[in-house]
Amino acid sequence: MPAMNGFLYPRSASGVASLVPSPPWFYSGDLLTVEYRTDPANVEALLPEPLELAPEDPGAVAFIWADWQSCSTSREELLDPARAQYKEAFVVVRCSFRGVTYSRCVFIWVDKDFAIGRGLHQGYPKKLGSMWQTRPHPFAQAAPRIGPGGTFGATLASYDRRLAEAVVTLREESETNGFVNGHPMAHHRILPDIAGHGDAFSELISSGASGFQGGPAWTGDAELRLFEAPTEEVARLEVGEIIGGYFRQVGVEWNGGATLARL
Amino acid sequence: MPAMNGFLYPRSASGVASLVPSPPWFYSGDLLTVEYRTDPANVEALLPEPLELAPEDPGAVAFIWADWQSCSTSREELLDPARAQYKEAFVVVRCSFRGVTYSRCVFIWVDKDFAIGRGLHQGYPKKLGSMWQTRPHPFAQAAPRIGPGGTFGATLASYDRRLAEAVVTLREESETNGFVNGHPMAHHRILPDIAGHGDAFSELISSGASGFQGGPAWTGDAELRLFEAPTEEVARLEVGEIIGGYFRQVGVEWNGGATLARL
Amino acid sequence: MPAMNGFLYPRSASGVASLVPSPPWFYSGDLLTVEYRTDPANVEALLPEPLELAPEDPGAVAFIWADWQSCSTSREELLDPARAQYKEAFVVVRCSFRGVTYSRCVFIWVDKDFAIGRGLHQGYPKKLGSMWQTRPHPFAQAAPRIGPGGTFGATLASYDRRLAEAVVTLREESETNGFVNGHPMAHHRILPDIAGHGDAFSELISSGASGFQGGPAWTGDAELRLFEAPTEEVARLEVGEIIGGYFRQVGVEWNGGATLARL
Amino acid sequence: MPAMNGFLYPRSASGVASLVPSPPWFYSGDLLTVEYRTDPANVEALLPEPLELAPEDPGAVAFIWADWQSCSTSREELLDPARAQYKEAFVVVRCSFRGVTYSRCVFIWVDKDFAIGRGLHQGYPKKLGSMWQTRPHPFAQAAPRIGPGGTFGATLASYDRRLAEAVVTLREESETNGFVNGHPMAHHRILPDIAGHGDAFSELISSGASGFQGGPAWTGDAELRLFEAPTEEVARLEVGEIIGGYFRQVGVEWNGGATLARL
Repeated sequence: MPAMNGFLYPRSASGVASLVPSPPWFYSGDLLTVEYRTDPANVEALLPEPLELAPEDPGAVAFIWADWQSCSTSREELLDPARAQYKEAFVVVRCSFRGVTYSRCVFIWVDKDFAIGRGLHQGYPKKLGSMWQTRPHPFAQAAPRIGPGGTFGATLASYDRRLAEAVVTLREESETNGFVNGHPMAHHRILPDIAGHGDAFSELISSGASGFQGGPAWTGDAELRLFEAPTEEVARLEVGEIIGGYFRQVGVEWNGGATLARL
Repeated sequence: MPAMNGFLYPRSASGVASLVPSPPWFYSGDLLTVEYRTDPANVEALLPEPLELAPEDPGAVAFIWADWQSCSTSREELLDPARAQYKEAFVVVRCSFRGVTYSRCVFIWVDKDFAIGRGLHQGYPKKLGSMWQTRPHPFAQAAPRIGPGGTFGATLASYDRRLAEAVVTLREESETNGFVNGHPMAHHRILPDIAGHGDAFSELISSGASGFQGGPAWTGDAELRLFEAPTEEVARLEVGEIIGGYFRQVGVEWNGGATLARL
Repeated sequence: MPAMNGFLYPRSASGVASLVPSPPWFYSGDLLTVEYRTDPANVEALLPEPLELAPEDPGAVAFIWADWQSCSTSREELLDPARAQYKEAFVVVRCSFRGVTYSRCVFIWVDKDFAIGRGLHQGYPKKLGSMWQTRPHPFAQAAPRIGPGGTFGATLASYDRRLAEAVVTLREESETNGFVNGHPMAHHRILPDIAGHGDAFSELISSGASGFQGGPAWTGDAELRLFEAPTEEVARLEVGEIIGGYFRQVGVEWNGGATLARL
Repeated sequence: MPAMNGFLYPRSASGVASLVPSPPWFYSGDLLTVEYRTDPANVEALLPEPLELAPEDPGAVAFIWADWQSCSTSREELLDPARAQYKEAFVVVRCSFRGVTYSRCVFIWVDKDFAIGRGLHQGYPKKLGSMWQTRPHPFAQAAPRIGPGGTFGATLASYDRRLAEAVVTLREESETNGFVNGHPMAHHRILPDIAGHGDAFSELISSGASGFQGGPAWTGDAELRLFEAPTEEVARLEVGEIIGGYFRQVGVEWNGGATLARL
């Protein structure tokens, strides 16, 4: 039999059909973030053991929209941009494992299958969604500029229901792009047992960017509205105090992580 | 910490947000199948060890379109049909493991995330695609009838490229709906190691329908055209002799399987 | 210069690229209808002159979902079903013109451009939407049957917002499939003046099916919920008394109409 | 009866549901253009009378992708960006009317219904399509920069078939962004007669931008591939000599036009 190739399924002798090529993966895009505080019990309801609430500000949440272009080492996706561009919205909290604080993506929606495939590897719990995020542009006829007064809207929907809406109005440059998504990620990767006896595989892994560049971060006023849906829990992360809104353009490289614990 | 619930990710205290609810899963739908023969070497290029070519007719392939409505035990998805309806196209070959012949889905495209989630559990290598399949209807103004002369078309596309097109014209009732997809499925379930050292998890599982009803199978003449695409290999299963075309309406229940081997 | 051909834009010497081929147009599909009464003033707000409220039951409204397969005389669309299948949801009221009662589609959403093109000709005010409608199937694993107790759901969304949701539970066969959509249609066809001075063209036309077949109509209990959206008015047709829910499978031919008035 | 409002259908007392608000309309976006020459007979096959071939370089064609954000005077669409962002691909030739040279859009695909509505008014023969266009970004991990060596890809598909693919590699700044799309547009606006007797309405209108800003135009090498499809003619504008590729960021205002001839 020929040896099989391909980073992910479907594997084959050539490996061409793999849903995603091997890391490293590269990203250029714009992040729109709203950080806020919810009751820490809402965060706790999303933390499987062995994770615990972060010791400081345990109810802090980051709701992030990202408008990405991405590629593999070959960069061939950039010339067939249906395979490079995708949008996502995701919700990040913080947690603690063996005394170290991690970020953790608890909900995430994307609009391409290659992004789902990467998420399987990285432990992001990706579903499909429909995301829209105002784009800055050098000409203001129908666009904000990245600067004081620039106003950006963002929406998230799934199964034809709005799940979230945000508006961020930039005020000034900021030292940070928020703090909730600033730690290495701690994610579970699971596969339920095919015979129905719990999980066949479960581990806690950690990863983060292996390369990063960023423009100036901007901060300003923010609104965020979350809506109920029968198969979603995001509205249970009820919006209390708004910490701030942020906008930043970034370039990122991702190239694997480490197993924290086999569960 | 609260106990976590949810069949698949994202897990939480309530389990409400799980991409899919627990099996059993229920399906009602229409299958359009074209069976043909390719060079067995093309099939072999898709069989990871410990699988081997089937001993008889090893180059037989089934290309199947399915137009499904599906639900969980609660049946609540049927009243919010965005969560129940999906379409798929998939390619099945046969293989041998420890002297037993299995069917194996080597390529599959679906159009909903809940279908991707089920596939993660069942070992179907699901990508997103755009599938269209002619529907029968009692009134013939713009539809074929299920009967002699009824002609059905089907197409598959991914990333804005046509991957396959079929036309099937029914001639007569048939003892079978084809034979390639008639065995229990043998599928791999894999997760690459987060640190890049091969696979963190790999197993061979087997599963099949736990319940089945079917109307009469119809057979007739069939055409199938496969097209090249930079991230697909389906056209390498070059169409040689056409075995036949088939149409059947079915109801299916799926409720788990068995591990054949940890790899 | 060569003579131009093509029923609709873009016209050319060959006429091949026309958004839609010439009538007659053929349809096979399933209709799910909820009829109810609203304040007649809500209907009046949607009737341009020279139309008036219908003399009897002027506040009656039909909210209809349709799951169609359609084609032109060549029937070639049926073998490339992306060009044949579409879904729609539409709202019909009644009105009066010169003493005759007409039906009138006041809002309609479809999911294909060929359906928009047909609507331009027929005077249907078509927008794009996302529609889902439970399908009956001979096998009940994940489908209702057309008969007592069969329950069908339907949803409508646009710009990632739910606009309407319905549930209909069939009880018995019915003499009719409702009455609101039972008259010839009276529709406006308009083009605003390119220089901004009112309309360049405005007429009132009438049309209806040139051929029709239908299976038994079923009636039963119905629920209908309408939701606000910033660019829609459908929720202003507030749901008062529910008249009934209906399900019927039909085959239809459409082949032109008549001008009632140039305005 | 209440007076009706709304720029386009569906009209109502409030005018809220109109598919598009009144002009002026505002646009910010990026244009990727490939200009080439085809046999002038191919252009002539797309020019209805009273238009004639342009006297100079009559076979010149511009194939243009545009990635837009757009809004009305209220700018409210920019905070609900599903209603502001759209993509398009369009094909422009030149023609002559009464001794004046005009540009003319002969084929165009967009991905939103509000863009179709604007096109009805402006005489653009809009269909739905799926367009992708590489985006520049300040961080090069997965993006070209606007400058020498920046390479942009673009694709167009409709009904799950690729219709066109382009690659443009920027070399240097350019005096122009091409010349084919540089004249006022001459477009037909038509409505076929509802009774089947030719057209109920047909006129030739002219329009152009009422306001314009643009960054530097860049030019470079270009490739363009066109593909056959059963309901499209774009591949008949066969690509001969490539004139050049262009990239430019622009801001545009559109606010009506003038009737050239009632036909």
